[in-house]
Amino acid sequence: MDLILIVDLLGTTAFAISGALVAMKKRLDLFGIFIIAFVTAVGGGTLRDILLKAPITWMRDLNYLWVIGLAALMAILFRSKLGYVRRSLFLFDTIGIALYTVLGVQKGLAYEYPPIICVALGVMSASFGGVIRDLICNEIPLIFHKEIYATACLGGGLTYFLLLQTPLSDNWVLIVSGAVVFLIRLLAVIFHWSLPSVYRKFPNR
Amino acid sequence: MDLILIVDLLGTTAFAISGALVAMKKRLDLFGIFIIAFVTAVGGGTLRDILLKAPITWMRDLNYLWVIGLAALMAILFRSKLGYVRRSLFLFDTIGIALYTVLGVQKGLAYEYPPIICVALGVMSASFGGVIRDLICNEIPLIFHKEIYATACLGGGLTYFLLLQTPLSDNWVLIVSGAVVFLIRLLAVIFHWSLPSVYRKFPNR
Amino acid sequence: MDLILIVDLLGTTAFAISGALVAMKKRLDLFGIFIIAFVTAVGGGTLRDILLKAPITWMRDLNYLWVIGLAALMAILFRSKLGYVRRSLFLFDTIGIALYTVLGVQKGLAYEYPPIICVALGVMSASFGGVIRDLICNEIPLIFHKEIYATACLGGGLTYFLLLQTPLSDNWVLIVSGAVVFLIRLLAVIFHWSLPSVYRKFPNR
Repeated sequence: MDLILIVDLLGTTAFAISGALVAMKKRLDLFGIFIIAFVTAVGGGTLRDILLKAPITWMRDLNYLWVIGLAALMAILFRSKLGYVRRSLFLFDTIGIALYTVLGVQKGLAYEYPPIICVALGVMSASFGGVIRDLICNEIPLIFHKEIYATACLGGGLTYFLLLQTPLSDNWVLIVSGAVVFLIRLLAVIFHWSLPSVYRKFPNR
Repeated sequence: MDLILIVDLLGTTAFAISGALVAMKKRLDLFGIFIIAFVTAVGGGTLRDILLKAPITWMRDLNYLWVIGLAALMAILFRSKLGYVRRSLFLFDTIGIALYTVLGVQKGLAYEYPPIICVALGVMSASFGGVIRDLICNEIPLIFHKEIYATACLGGGLTYFLLLQTPLSDNWVLIVSGAVVFLIRLLAVIFHWSLPSVYRKFPNR
Repeated sequence: MDLILIVDLLGTTAFAISGALVAMKKRLDLFGIFIIAFVTAVGGGTLRDILLKAPITWMRDLNYLWVIGLAALMAILFRSKLGYVRRSLFLFDTIGIALYTVLGVQKGLAYEYPPIICVALGVMSASFGGVIRDLICNEIPLIFHKEIYATACLGGGLTYFLLLQTPLSDNWVLIVSGAVVFLIRLLAVIFHWSLPSVYRKFPNR
């Protein structure tokens, strides 16, 4: 089976769960949970496809809908066992952005856009679903918090283009770049990495 | 005259009024009111048309603009007579989602998408304008409140596909499915129906 | 060099700076600042191009990305010198909407849409980036504040169509209409102009 499709469905699952968790935290009703799961999962990819004028994947391939429905259902059923919700949310969110960044870069390349635009597409694919989720749920978007987030996506995107110069197979380029996004974000949180502050001299409000 | 066009313009009117009412509640200025009315009225249909890669109806048919302008003007002129604003808002919002759900399903079918995708398109057409309206006005989107809302859209969408199996004419399928959306939401509010809660065992924050 | 391209890049610069300033006010990290600058700068034009089904300019012409990056960098480096941030923000925001209104109108005309739709496209091009910026940063969108804002865009759009009837060259039509948007908004703020209130008789909440 196609590795890209598997990766895409994994990312969809991760985002759907992260959407369902935020929706449950906000105590939305059953359908609200499914809708937020759906929007979180397909939002970034839909924006990417609209910008690329590509066919929108979830509209022709029903696997996405089933996977999202199943993921949301699992999140609801095992909500008490997900325990440390914040930690799970972080984990699934990070897996999602890793996968979607790489997919976005790859799809941009397939449509022959310049590398830097592909990286921008990757970051957007990865972050837009989560931004919508947070806007709808009245949270400040997770992506703009202190943690290194876009930097992780950027790192993965650049890795992708570096590895394209090597004899590595496409699948390995995909896997390694995704892992780079995941690791940067994980390490950033564990070791409290942050970008150099720009606010030392900035007038305090 | 084409029933679909009439239904579309009716839904547009209902959404424009609901947008103008929320904008007035937030005390926006004259143009703010018109803009929110416009965004609420065309937002869902525009998303639907972008996803379908269909021509965007309000850009070629000026009837939509006139109808939205007139509806917003009426809402402004008769604001003191609209009296129980909350109740009117609810009524117009419900008419709007009933009409847009059915139109979304129908347009999806015309583009030969699978039934479940058509229902998803219907729900999006119906809810997206209102979600934008509420996001801009800093309200928690009405659609994610406790009331049965998406369920009503879903019920109408499913009714649509059931009725397609009967010898009913297309117009009647349209009317009955729209009425189902309207009735489910109306009865849900009157009798305080709600979806089964998923929060009994959920750790309280 | 093409005047339109210069105008477009100037508007992009103005919006990118306004985005970076709001992001710094919200104390986002380095990449958050760049992303908000980017979204503010390209949001309105992207919406316009999606609606027109036109190629999305920043995806094929890398000048936009460089200009946005440079503008954000300048805003960060000279943040302490920008001094009265609110005033600068207002200035850059107003330049941006003036330029984008005129560009939106012009592009709509090039795609042969009716004049009123072109004006609507101009207002959307001008305001959508700022609306996204404000939504993401949890501010009430600047466009819906008391100041005359959409009215300025509308005034510029109408001026554009009036001047098209005169023997003025296209470039002068562009410049004068943009100046009209800028002046209306500037004068409105200086002299505290506001639209006639619709709230005298409106039930207070």
